[in-house]
Amino acid sequence: MQDKLSLMIPGPTPVPESVLLAMGRHPIGHRSADFQKIVRRTTEQLRWLHQTSGDVLALAGSGTAAMEAGIINVLSKGDTVLCGDNGKFGERWVKVAKAYGLTVQVIQAEWGQPLEPEAFRAALDADAGKQIRAVILTHSETSTGVINDLEAIAGHVRAHGTALTIADCVTSLGACDVPMDRWGLDVVGSGSQKGYMMPPGLGFVAMSDRAWSAYERSDLPKFYLDLGRYRKSAHADSNPFTPPVNLYFALEAALGMMQEEGLEAIFARHARHRAAAQAGMTAMGLPLYAAAGHGSPAITAVAPEGIDAEVLRKKVKDRFDILLAGGQDHLKGKVFRIGHLGFVCDRDVLTAVAAIEATLQELGLHTGSVGAGVAACAAALAG
Amino acid sequence: MQDKLSLMIPGPTPVPESVLLAMGRHPIGHRSADFQKIVRRTTEQLRWLHQTSGDVLALAGSGTAAMEAGIINVLSKGDTVLCGDNGKFGERWVKVAKAYGLTVQVIQAEWGQPLEPEAFRAALDADAGKQIRAVILTHSETSTGVINDLEAIAGHVRAHGTALTIADCVTSLGACDVPMDRWGLDVVGSGSQKGYMMPPGLGFVAMSDRAWSAYERSDLPKFYLDLGRYRKSAHADSNPFTPPVNLYFALEAALGMMQEEGLEAIFARHARHRAAAQAGMTAMGLPLYAAAGHGSPAITAVAPEGIDAEVLRKKVKDRFDILLAGGQDHLKGKVFRIGHLGFVCDRDVLTAVAAIEATLQELGLHTGSVGAGVAACAAALAG
Repeated sequence: MQDKLSLMIPGPTPVPESVLLAMGRHPIGHRSADFQKIVRRTTEQLRWLHQTSGDVLALAGSGTAAMEAGIINVLSKGDTVLCGDNGKFGERWVKVAKAYGLTVQVIQAEWGQPLEPEAFRAALDADAGKQIRAVILTHSETSTGVINDLEAIAGHVRAHGTALTIADCVTSLGACDVPMDRWGLDVVGSGSQKGYMMPPGLGFVAMSDRAWSAYERSDLPKFYLDLGRYRKSAHADSNPFTPPVNLYFALEAALGMMQEEGLEAIFARHARHRAAAQAGMTAMGLPLYAAAGHGSPAITAVAPEGIDAEVLRKKVKDRFDILLAGGQDHLKGKVFRIGHLGFVCDRDVLTAVAAIEATLQELGLHTGSVGAGVAACAAALAG
Repeated sequence: MQDKLSLMIPGPTPVPESVLLAMGRHPIGHRSADFQKIVRRTTEQLRWLHQTSGDVLALAGSGTAAMEAGIINVLSKGDTVLCGDNGKFGERWVKVAKAYGLTVQVIQAEWGQPLEPEAFRAALDADAGKQIRAVILTHSETSTGVINDLEAIAGHVRAHGTALTIADCVTSLGACDVPMDRWGLDVVGSGSQKGYMMPPGLGFVAMSDRAWSAYERSDLPKFYLDLGRYRKSAHADSNPFTPPVNLYFALEAALGMMQEEGLEAIFARHARHRAAAQAGMTAMGLPLYAAAGHGSPAITAVAPEGIDAEVLRKKVKDRFDILLAGGQDHLKGKVFRIGHLGFVCDRDVLTAVAAIEATLQELGLHTGSVGAGVAACAAALAG
């Protein structure tokens, strides 16, 4: 049905009407005092979200632009980096590092499994010559619905003493606790179309003081993604290049809503939705793709057996106007993914489970007692 | 007065209500068939605007991101480029080229003067060893309001036989004729907040077949700005990274409006507004900054004598809610700039001239016959 779409994908995520209305205002001059006020306010809001006293910079671009900026601003030609790879985004940061000629060591885990913190500890311990300049990893692996133990891994990096932690928090920030300063993270990348409850188009890079020290030595070529330019402008409540003014309007509104709700309540809501989505799927006999206990609070990946996941996903879209995400790369047809990230309430999760259950019933594929999925989901939502 | 702002700066430019409403819709999935339709349609619209049968790629980013992408995708380490520099943006492309270690030859003209095509011809003729791989220049120099003779310079580049023409058409595209294929341009960069009548946040890079051949050899490091990724996705009506979905909604609407008006009518409107702004300023005794006959159809820069341009500019804003642009760098306080680019009608230009005239009168600085500015502007608008 036209305009009836419900987004349950891990991005773009649903956007509140008030945020859309804020974004739909006529643009203003980006060098005006009025816009400076917005930059000042959103910078403070971003610090709150990242739980940091350091710089959080916004740039026109995707989450990948933000992560690439984080990587190329703190590393130099010939540097060695240690990358965690247990999904499509882990893979991507390896590609970015290689595109800039960095020497890349990879710690892998199978898709669906979490990265093993001990493997990082061992690799960092073995680096007696302190060759590893950064550890790059994805906190919530969007492709598999796995959450990695960023806190533990960042702890091992701090113990190493020299390496920086560069974290892709694109689908974890705003979904679960990512206390940048407390965990000692050095670079945190994120994107607007995720926990921020905004449309895509803004990327964010938070930088620690250690990251800025590394920036001073960094010699990888860059101009648009040169974060020093953004820092200099941000300190004057401005931007080095014309910023996406209307997305800033949306950012201010969305972060204001998040501040109203509060971080603890936001994290509790996401944890509840993870539990409810997992309970619903399990009760319907649909196996979860992420290893038990390692599911992301933002995305639940489901690997139905004996059913093409794409057939199920498309039927849910056609019948109920709910868009679920498919599997990426070799997981296409094997998994579907429920995004429960950002502007998602209990009703949305209950509805998604109900629609999946009704679709299985229509397809004659429901293997258990019809209604069991919704019942389990409802019980989990009740807490 | 709140929400009464009239933008007469060279970007962000005014945005039609229908474009804002299109942008304010709820986002859809960027991997959906519905979004593919939008990519397909906007790609065709972009080809129409660029007058090319080649690829025109859109990326989340500013005009600088687009230009940097254009430069680093067709050049390789150690390449020599010839840059035209007669303003802030010409200067910027020199900086980008140097940031990537390219060898840069510069042809300069004073700010306010056009680049001299003969100087390019001479430099290219002197390059018997065919070391120059690209000529980089700005068509409409936003900082000074000068239009450079891109057609003539591109002709000299074609005669050279090896070099590519990389043109910053950020404030010329959609304001005057930029027939990419006919002029033999190889890379054309632009940004959404200009002639496109949209908010900022999308950059565009058009590439000729010669540019793609150079891409195959290019070894400068890039990932997010790697245009090969965009081309591959665009050929499947998609994007390599999450695109700014709502800005695409705006793009489709804005380019649809432009197609309704037609290129010839759009160019005639901009030429008329240039003539009207110039006539109004001249009749009030306010000297034009750009050399006679070289004023941009997008921006008129004015260098008042005996008046701080910032005082005048701020007074126009405070009294009439019209935002003019100030001078950049060493021109701050020396010039103000009237943007008449994009969604600007005769009323807007007449109003801006009237507001400037009324402000001069209020300040006791009108040196001529009050009303002469508006009269001359009106006469020019009448054609």
